[in-house]
Amino acid sequence: MPLKSKLSMQIEKRKMIGVVGGMGPYSGLDLIKKIFDLTKADQDQDHVPLAMISVPHKIEDRTKFLEGATDINPGIEISRIVNQLSQQGASFIGMPCNTAHSPAIIKEVYNTMPKGVTFINMIVEVIKFIQDKYQGVDRVGVLATAGTIKANVYNDQLIKNNLIPIILAKEEQKELIDESIYNKDFGIKSKSDPVHKNALKNIELAIESLIEKKAEIIILGCTELPLAINSPSYKSVPLIDSTMVLAKSLLMYLNQKVLKKTINKKW
Amino acid sequence: MPLKSKLSMQIEKRKMIGVVGGMGPYSGLDLIKKIFDLTKADQDQDHVPLAMISVPHKIEDRTKFLEGATDINPGIEISRIVNQLSQQGASFIGMPCNTAHSPAIIKEVYNTMPKGVTFINMIVEVIKFIQDKYQGVDRVGVLATAGTIKANVYNDQLIKNNLIPIILAKEEQKELIDESIYNKDFGIKSKSDPVHKNALKNIELAIESLIEKKAEIIILGCTELPLAINSPSYKSVPLIDSTMVLAKSLLMYLNQKVLKKTINKKW
Repeated sequence: MPLKSKLSMQIEKRKMIGVVGGMGPYSGLDLIKKIFDLTKADQDQDHVPLAMISVPHKIEDRTKFLEGATDINPGIEISRIVNQLSQQGASFIGMPCNTAHSPAIIKEVYNTMPKGVTFINMIVEVIKFIQDKYQGVDRVGVLATAGTIKANVYNDQLIKNNLIPIILAKEEQKELIDESIYNKDFGIKSKSDPVHKNALKNIELAIESLIEKKAEIIILGCTELPLAINSPSYKSVPLIDSTMVLAKSLLMYLNQKVLKKTINKKW
Repeated sequence: MPLKSKLSMQIEKRKMIGVVGGMGPYSGLDLIKKIFDLTKADQDQDHVPLAMISVPHKIEDRTKFLEGATDINPGIEISRIVNQLSQQGASFIGMPCNTAHSPAIIKEVYNTMPKGVTFINMIVEVIKFIQDKYQGVDRVGVLATAGTIKANVYNDQLIKNNLIPIILAKEEQKELIDESIYNKDFGIKSKSDPVHKNALKNIELAIESLIEKKAEIIILGCTELPLAINSPSYKSVPLIDSTMVLAKSLLMYLNQKVLKKTINKKW
């Protein structure tokens, strides 16, 4: 075997996906499940190397930080986890939490990125995915936590890419989405298996409101949302599962050849 | 705050569950999901710290090793993962693969156990669970891979604890169980979401055969089996999910107080 090919095989072998879990814990699991589901594999050994660290008690709530309810930047702990995953051998790192991609949080991560590690930005990947698969679409609905909305996480990226963000009115945001995620009795962070019917109903109302506002496509821009809504569309409006996009991108970066051709061509 | 209590809180904070994943990848996920499901939590921060490493391509098939089809002891790689998890901060480590608990494999892990780390042995925990919850039961059916059966993983422990192991005849073992796990077209290692109907049907036939042989209780002694059968009983014979027992034990060792009281009292 020629030296170069042997070397490239060794490098190939070293590649590993790293998952920053814990935001929330079930979203971390959901990402990993989607990575496995999208992998061409008919035996254990065909699956991709992956490490996850989930230390939720150490990571301050992202929305609380963005809304000024705490001074502790969750990005500091996230950055520590990214570095730990890198020590583990992870080359491509994903973080299944849209809110944590807010500039004020993620700058901590980018400022301390270990050498040789690529951080796959979920927001950037979602926009790329829409531009690739839904050419001609202009009006993009965004369902996300108040923190993500307030920090313009998706808005800024959409506008930069000549797309028009459609968001909920402030009251709808609070009642329909924030409650569905954070409410201690029926929010997805408390009850996700199964998701409580109140949460489900409110999210559906939020989707309908975005459709009324003429959204042509809707981003499920909080990794808790696909735990409630796992259909690829609602009343024929495509729903973009940000976790699924991240799973697909991580596999594409790791090794395009392992990506399964799925039944639903949109993925 | 007195010094001692502060210190004990710091120690408490350092505790973390480590999961040796990849055998197979979905069994690793299943264990973590069960850990989360059994945790009292109504916000992200209530969930337990957890790290998983899943490097399936590096771990030789356990049954192949036990049947002599390969000389590479998967225990060597497993031991490396246990040490990596320990470096990550894991104090209690679980390995959701019954076959890998065979003495010939697990001795490699015990021989190189890092200091301050407790390995929670799934087989031992399953037997303890049965003795605790099903007093008076004598005849215990075991559904497992050929490797686990051949290495007497459960048999030895059951006999040691005055329980009578009931296993399948050799032909049934091969046709009903090994095929349901390893067959490239319909085995659970190839297709687990959903599990193929052939696999499901064969596992049910195997359960019926153990019931015919007068098993009073049946251990699902391969972590792929609960991916197919998630009912707590079959024709009123209790089915013991080894992954669920491991999840519960890991939480008990970590911090008994975080364990949720579940609806099904058997768990």
